[in-house]
Amino acid sequence: MNAPANQRAVRRHNVGVVLRHVAGRGPRSRATIAHETGLNKSTVSSLVTELIDLGLLVERGTERTGTVGRPGLVVDVAGAGAAGIGLEVNAGSLAACATDLAGTVLHRGYEAADGRAGPDAVLDRLAVLARAALEDLKAQGVPPVGIAVAVPGLVDTEAGLLLLAPGLGWERVPVARELAERVGVPGLPVTIDNEANLAALAELTEGAGRGLAHFVHVSGEVGIGAGVVLGGQLFRGAHGFGGQFGHMTVDPDGLACVCGARGCLETRAGLEALLAAAGEDTGEGGALAGDRLARLRARADDGDGVAVAALREGGHWLGVGLAIAASLLDPEAFVLGGFLAELAPHLTPAADEELRARLLATQRERPGILASALGPEAAARGGAVLALRRVLDDPGLAGEVTVAREVPV
Amino acid sequence: MNAPANQRAVRRHNVGVVLRHVAGRGPRSRATIAHETGLNKSTVSSLVTELIDLGLLVERGTERTGTVGRPGLVVDVAGAGAAGIGLEVNAGSLAACATDLAGTVLHRGYEAADGRAGPDAVLDRLAVLARAALEDLKAQGVPPVGIAVAVPGLVDTEAGLLLLAPGLGWERVPVARELAERVGVPGLPVTIDNEANLAALAELTEGAGRGLAHFVHVSGEVGIGAGVVLGGQLFRGAHGFGGQFGHMTVDPDGLACVCGARGCLETRAGLEALLAAAGEDTGEGGALAGDRLARLRARADDGDGVAVAALREGGHWLGVGLAIAASLLDPEAFVLGGFLAELAPHLTPAADEELRARLLATQRERPGILASALGPEAAARGGAVLALRRVLDDPGLAGEVTVAREVPV
Repeated sequence: MNAPANQRAVRRHNVGVVLRHVAGRGPRSRATIAHETGLNKSTVSSLVTELIDLGLLVERGTERTGTVGRPGLVVDVAGAGAAGIGLEVNAGSLAACATDLAGTVLHRGYEAADGRAGPDAVLDRLAVLARAALEDLKAQGVPPVGIAVAVPGLVDTEAGLLLLAPGLGWERVPVARELAERVGVPGLPVTIDNEANLAALAELTEGAGRGLAHFVHVSGEVGIGAGVVLGGQLFRGAHGFGGQFGHMTVDPDGLACVCGARGCLETRAGLEALLAAAGEDTGEGGALAGDRLARLRARADDGDGVAVAALREGGHWLGVGLAIAASLLDPEAFVLGGFLAELAPHLTPAADEELRARLLATQRERPGILASALGPEAAARGGAVLALRRVLDDPGLAGEVTVAREVPV
Repeated sequence: MNAPANQRAVRRHNVGVVLRHVAGRGPRSRATIAHETGLNKSTVSSLVTELIDLGLLVERGTERTGTVGRPGLVVDVAGAGAAGIGLEVNAGSLAACATDLAGTVLHRGYEAADGRAGPDAVLDRLAVLARAALEDLKAQGVPPVGIAVAVPGLVDTEAGLLLLAPGLGWERVPVARELAERVGVPGLPVTIDNEANLAALAELTEGAGRGLAHFVHVSGEVGIGAGVVLGGQLFRGAHGFGGQFGHMTVDPDGLACVCGARGCLETRAGLEALLAAAGEDTGEGGALAGDRLARLRARADDGDGVAVAALREGGHWLGVGLAIAASLLDPEAFVLGGFLAELAPHLTPAADEELRARLLATQRERPGILASALGPEAAARGGAVLALRRVLDDPGLAGEVTVAREVPV
């Protein structure tokens, strides 16, 4: 906020302004960019030239406008300019996704795997997925600029450290360093983040949250987490622990939760709670959770009374949680992801009713409940978006990451 | 975030950087400002000259440093440069406070009044308080730059409209326009904001929140509201309705709340709830609430068992609310204001215990519970801070508001 501006910083800032403008608004002429950003035309021309040299923008036909005069050449983000790689570790699966600056998915990878097999075994498999993505990008001629790993737990993003993932049974695992060593591409940065945060980032950039400044992405994976987007930015809290949606108290004297407290939302609307209420096997979850989830959804779709009632009750508690978050944060919308999206048709009516009943009259019409537009790959896709952020934030970096183009994979 | 920078905007930005730097860090030399902000020395000299011309900075002696060479003249914010006026409407009282850029309180006003007497009568009295503040500032030779009114309710800050204040029984009152007309000083802007937001702003700038980037100021006035500070900025939510702390559900099937829902925090830890639990008169509150609060505090201080137990139970529920907010927002601290600060010694132990018990292990040590450093005048003082913000954000405005210096009051 209080950072001073100087000439070089101004140019570095403005080159990012232009790239983000085109990435966010789509192909347009230099004149249109100048008009919309308030930068003058000669500055925009010079910045666009720099971005074309960096391989991040390309010229593409002319702009059709109603104005007289010479039609301007349109510039667009260069699909081949840079790719980000997102990976996801979950209790039952590993996933990979690579996208370019235009949001096009260039690669997808998936493997059913038990995340609870321990960090060594899981990170070995994750590195195989990462290297497959790198090979695919190499074949497509798109240079990777980074890898970001989505994990279901608390993270120290600065240190690349997974602090605690109860659903995996992992504690203090230096995921970023361990994966970077296994992938073995010097100069290619590896970062980690919470899966709900990355899913929210994907929804913000390419999914149901596009165009929203304030929303809460409530993500049902091993537990229930939330990615909180405020002012168009991911909000992580003072220590990176924000968005513990599943561990908000909704029933103070209620059931004991795995976290040690009582009456957390997860004890009422977590996947295991819903499965148990519907009379499905509880057991170990993990790789089997997907099958049991599909079975629950099918039973509810078929009108099975026990399944429908269980989801209605779960939706009621979810609505209490949404109302609490709405009272504090006043978002434009909630986006449900993971198993919550899968079960949304059966959860949302009761959740919505409870949400409206608990809001002040003036607020009641406001936050909608949307389902994820990106489905189960949201978190990995958010990882790709995060990896690409480096270049959008500071396009000059694209010139420095070409080391990754040359490394054999 | 994505705003482009140009030359004139850069200078306008940097003049604010220098003023905010001196206002925030205290008196220092041009050379120190240059060193600390990264701006070059000649730029800083030129900006300081502009700020001295605007009457916002003054030269004040020399800087004592360990370095050799000529000691630099120190510049400081000019106490006489500009003043903001904050007003507060509450159920039992009206208050005024004027401060300068250095945070010095230049004027205080107070009047016991029933806020529920209706907007016309209350705004008449508020205008009297405002004019007394203007006269006092005139006598001190400090030009006022604006008035901001703290109200206990939902506001549309853009429109200067109080949407709903259940504790006052006000609905859709154009407070800013009505007050501006009554004060009758053309060119002096009048704005409004929620009292919890303004109290949080005061704590952030001059109180318990100084130096914190993320905190939640939980303010007990007519009800319980919160001012949420994220990244050093007041967060208002998508529609300005964030921080409805008192209407977070803590007990889903609990007591009916005035808002129409059940089990809101106010039904358990609101002032009327605490007074009722302690066996104090309930009745109409209003002007009498202060007396009953003082009596409750005195009884608890004297070890009255019923009062102590009532506050312990209230503290327990407050702790549930704090834990919920901590799970979502991961703040550095909570700051208690209003009656919550007054009763803090008796509420905090149980609240703290409940908060720790409900947080994840990794989070448990984090958010402290602090009491307001500013007491009951926090909201009015926050109004003064907000009114001054205009000049800190854009010091050039100080040249434009001198109209207010000339108007007879």
